[in-house]
Amino acid sequence: METVARVKMEDVARAAGVSVATVSKVVNGRYGVSASTFARVSAVIEELGYETSLGAQSLRSHKTNVIGVLVAEFEPFSAELLKGASEAIGPTGFELLAYSGGHPRGAVGWEQRSLKRLGGTLIDGAIIVTPTVVAAQNGIPVVAVDPHTGPSGAPTVDSDNFAGSVLATEYLLGLGHRRIALLGGRPDLESARLREDGFRHAMAAAGVPVDEALVRNGDFRPDSATAPAHDLLTLDDRPTAIFAANDLSAIRTMEVARELGLRVPDDLSVIGFDNVPESALANPPLTTIAQPLQDMGATALHMLVDLIAGRDVASTHVRLSTSMVERASCRAI
Amino acid sequence: METVARVKMEDVARAAGVSVATVSKVVNGRYGVSASTFARVSAVIEELGYETSLGAQSLRSHKTNVIGVLVAEFEPFSAELLKGASEAIGPTGFELLAYSGGHPRGAVGWEQRSLKRLGGTLIDGAIIVTPTVVAAQNGIPVVAVDPHTGPSGAPTVDSDNFAGSVLATEYLLGLGHRRIALLGGRPDLESARLREDGFRHAMAAAGVPVDEALVRNGDFRPDSATAPAHDLLTLDDRPTAIFAANDLSAIRTMEVARELGLRVPDDLSVIGFDNVPESALANPPLTTIAQPLQDMGATALHMLVDLIAGRDVASTHVRLSTSMVERASCRAI
Repeated sequence: METVARVKMEDVARAAGVSVATVSKVVNGRYGVSASTFARVSAVIEELGYETSLGAQSLRSHKTNVIGVLVAEFEPFSAELLKGASEAIGPTGFELLAYSGGHPRGAVGWEQRSLKRLGGTLIDGAIIVTPTVVAAQNGIPVVAVDPHTGPSGAPTVDSDNFAGSVLATEYLLGLGHRRIALLGGRPDLESARLREDGFRHAMAAAGVPVDEALVRNGDFRPDSATAPAHDLLTLDDRPTAIFAANDLSAIRTMEVARELGLRVPDDLSVIGFDNVPESALANPPLTTIAQPLQDMGATALHMLVDLIAGRDVASTHVRLSTSMVERASCRAI
Repeated sequence: METVARVKMEDVARAAGVSVATVSKVVNGRYGVSASTFARVSAVIEELGYETSLGAQSLRSHKTNVIGVLVAEFEPFSAELLKGASEAIGPTGFELLAYSGGHPRGAVGWEQRSLKRLGGTLIDGAIIVTPTVVAAQNGIPVVAVDPHTGPSGAPTVDSDNFAGSVLATEYLLGLGHRRIALLGGRPDLESARLREDGFRHAMAAAGVPVDEALVRNGDFRPDSATAPAHDLLTLDDRPTAIFAANDLSAIRTMEVARELGLRVPDDLSVIGFDNVPESALANPPLTTIAQPLQDMGATALHMLVDLIAGRDVASTHVRLSTSMVERASCRAI
């Protein structure tokens, strides 16, 4: 199957009547080639079916040289991780394939089906973003970002959800808020549980009892925040501040508040979690807890490359720090 | 090859000892299934190799049911298009695969090699983001976003680069600026040329001659803006305002200004183009011309789905409007 002679750069140069250096410039995207030469060389490359050395390597090693990023959908959180992985992949020689399996929103087990579809033949390894079930053995190396709780063999990358949530809650407490609501994330996800734990820890440490009527759950998607935000904000004794477990829920909460005639931050303080770029575009710009999302994507990428190469990874569970980003959605009372 | 009996939902239900409705809930991501039932059904799904009807359809029709988005790299512009395509793909039943071919930055013809690699066997059609060469016939339907100039059979989606650049330039003129520099984009791309045309048109219409010493080119990547921004800002008679042909170049320009001890907007006004979310995160937040990037991604997706289905598309060249987004990086002089 692999006896077909591979087209070499020399062959392209000969057929196009240019030097090998010129072909190299066209292939590698360096400037200094005239438009007409470029067009001629490109045509020959297509005609002869020349592949770059990357493609040739992948034939030789029977690897795909492609790393997969499996996401439930390309929302802002995944997009940031992808930017980080894309930036980090440059020098590794791998290509990057991102896949959203078209499963209904919130479908459980989507990542197993995507892995099955892509693993082995299309990708050498996968970064799985927010898996919904414990990753089983899949034949190819896997790194989970924002891992699911439970006994999983897969290395993981996340940020310190607990510490970040303590930070968010202490910030609101420091502004004088006592009736603080939690609009939590999807309860089957580790990150959502840790954010609730951090909230409760900080409230207890400050001696402020949690009013259970002020603890509601969404599932991280903006639509899921509409009803609980509306419920919270139409209580007789409504909260003065809401800690929403991710930015998209926080942004939706601010929209619901506005529809109810409440001003943020004058009538209601809102703090989010993630620091996706959309948080700065919100009205008002959202105060939030930053996860280093692009760093997390890059870290997962580097770990996966090591695993694919059969190298040991320095740590199989990398937890990066969260930090406070003050914008305009909170005020003291 | 396709005589293997397909596993049905009924088979999963029987093996797991639950109703078909329960299997359906697990597969389709609806809640109302206990954790233990969910785990049991999931295990059976994996064990029997059950595929959703989407996968079954794709076997029947010999189509992949996957739409590819081909990008040079996953930078903010591509990430926004991807979010829009992802949002729009939901109801279509297609899955979404985004691919960055690992070619060196600025490599010409990357999209042809990616198409060759994916077309037919992996994807039914492709959205190509900012192609560098004229898309040839590739066997599968293609829609180009931000098309390359030239005779191409592919339908295209872009925004009104010319009108947007007129808007940016008129805005700076309206603030009293006369020494306005252009930090242009990659000159082989249609979008960069149209932005320069718009700039020159608005300057001419206002009777303000363009100082050719103030017209420089980058290639849209932030690194490429460093040298021209530095050159412009160290001129004896430096510009009072810079129109950078995309946001990432504008943000880098503001960084260069700061390194030179110049304050934006007090000493220098800067306006960008794109309105990627990063522009709101810049310091100061960047005034820019918005392209409706997510709408562009969704429009390209819908056109491609029509083409794959063999339906006529209403228009083969869709141009969406640009608009002004005033933030804090410009001031009157």
